[in-house]
Amino acid sequence: MIGYLGPAGTFSYEAAHKYLKDKKEQLCEVSSIYALIKAVDKGEIASAVVPIENSLEGSVNTTLDTLAFDSELYICGEYTMYIRENLMALPGARPESIKRIISHPQPIGQCAGMINKFFSDAVIEYTNSTAAAAKQIEETKDMTTATIGPAACAGLYGLEILMPECNDEKNNATRFVELKKQENTSADCDKSSFIFTVDNKPGALFKVIEAIAENGVNMLKIESRPEKKELGRYIFFIDTDGNIRDENLKRAWEMIKETAYKCKFLGSYRKG
Amino acid sequence: MIGYLGPAGTFSYEAAHKYLKDKKEQLCEVSSIYALIKAVDKGEIASAVVPIENSLEGSVNTTLDTLAFDSELYICGEYTMYIRENLMALPGARPESIKRIISHPQPIGQCAGMINKFFSDAVIEYTNSTAAAAKQIEETKDMTTATIGPAACAGLYGLEILMPECNDEKNNATRFVELKKQENTSADCDKSSFIFTVDNKPGALFKVIEAIAENGVNMLKIESRPEKKELGRYIFFIDTDGNIRDENLKRAWEMIKETAYKCKFLGSYRKG
Repeated sequence: MIGYLGPAGTFSYEAAHKYLKDKKEQLCEVSSIYALIKAVDKGEIASAVVPIENSLEGSVNTTLDTLAFDSELYICGEYTMYIRENLMALPGARPESIKRIISHPQPIGQCAGMINKFFSDAVIEYTNSTAAAAKQIEETKDMTTATIGPAACAGLYGLEILMPECNDEKNNATRFVELKKQENTSADCDKSSFIFTVDNKPGALFKVIEAIAENGVNMLKIESRPEKKELGRYIFFIDTDGNIRDENLKRAWEMIKETAYKCKFLGSYRKG
Repeated sequence: MIGYLGPAGTFSYEAAHKYLKDKKEQLCEVSSIYALIKAVDKGEIASAVVPIENSLEGSVNTTLDTLAFDSELYICGEYTMYIRENLMALPGARPESIKRIISHPQPIGQCAGMINKFFSDAVIEYTNSTAAAAKQIEETKDMTTATIGPAACAGLYGLEILMPECNDEKNNATRFVELKKQENTSADCDKSSFIFTVDNKPGALFKVIEAIAENGVNMLKIESRPEKKELGRYIFFIDTDGNIRDENLKRAWEMIKETAYKCKFLGSYRKG
């Protein structure tokens, strides 16, 4: 079984279906990112497709933190999906009668400019998923509430699209990764991810970045997250070009492990 | 007027009061971080106290993004406050009868372990603020719903504390900054913040980190945020020790400006 962040009708559902297009395994729905990653970690499901980064909102913190602190898993694949948000309400509802907008915080954030422009007086309320919001409108038959989410929600919950593609930035994409207990050892992997932390002293992070640059490795991303011990202590997530079996990347990682702490190789995989 | 993120009874309210203890200006409540920062930018209020980072949840993205993209302000001061979350419900409600927990996503995240342990069957719903959740319970007189937030909410909204200090990690602190249109030029500033972006090519970020290390400047923090153009393009926020008037920091910043783009000095201020 391969898990995705449910319920049906979310972008995660859409991404998991597209990513796994030619695989036979059955998809199963899990209700939170934390539970989804833990299910793989405990061996209850074979793998999970989880969102890790959005081009506007940034990293999905729960995914990063669960990977760092609460599981021992590898990233084995990557899939990038363009996100098209839609403002939806019950059939017959008109934009000028919308008094309330409900959705997951992510779509709300991705449409903040549109909301400020057209619905500055509307009450904003958060739900656990885009599908939960759509379902709520269907059940309460509330003509003055709209939701924001994937077009699939309209069909699944009997809503009508009032504004298609209403996200502020059109370059709105989410990167998903597939997580497994075993690393991907295939030769065509061209991207790798790592976690580490450094001493809180001058030049400590510099030494790590230097090891990467010195070995001619291209760093694609560096992200910091709190170590959760005290303010000012961080763990770092880096993505680089290359396979861990490449000589230069292997050498850079050996050098990093000599200078940094809590080093964790998160896997090599094919760019999505 | 000095703005804070309202309504009354939030941690931001508490922090603004503590930070401004000996100042005479009147505090005013603004309902979103974006509106708060824009109010200073437009000159409607003299300054704003906004949350910028939590030791568990990480950066407050709205604050970083509004500082980078939608305002021309300086950080003039910093204040760190320890956060104590409390599970609260109507007087007489018992933990075993709680079926629903409502609060802002931040306190929910900070108590995820506690919720998983004691209230794994409870429905979780997000509200716009801790105070909004407390008010909702007061108004609906719902004995089966609890909220999580600052103890001040109990007094303001007639609730009782069921579990004091229920945050998972005890080292739970939030860093607030004061924003103004003019930079803080006093000599006792000992921390500085900067924004920049770099080319998406090998070693580009390394050059910036090298300029900092070479000049003996201690980098306290580096954080990346999406540039919002496409996946894989980032802007960087760095905090360093020192005052921009210090020779070594001034020199490092000049070097960074030669290699990086969209460089923005965010101000020198006293560590909180």
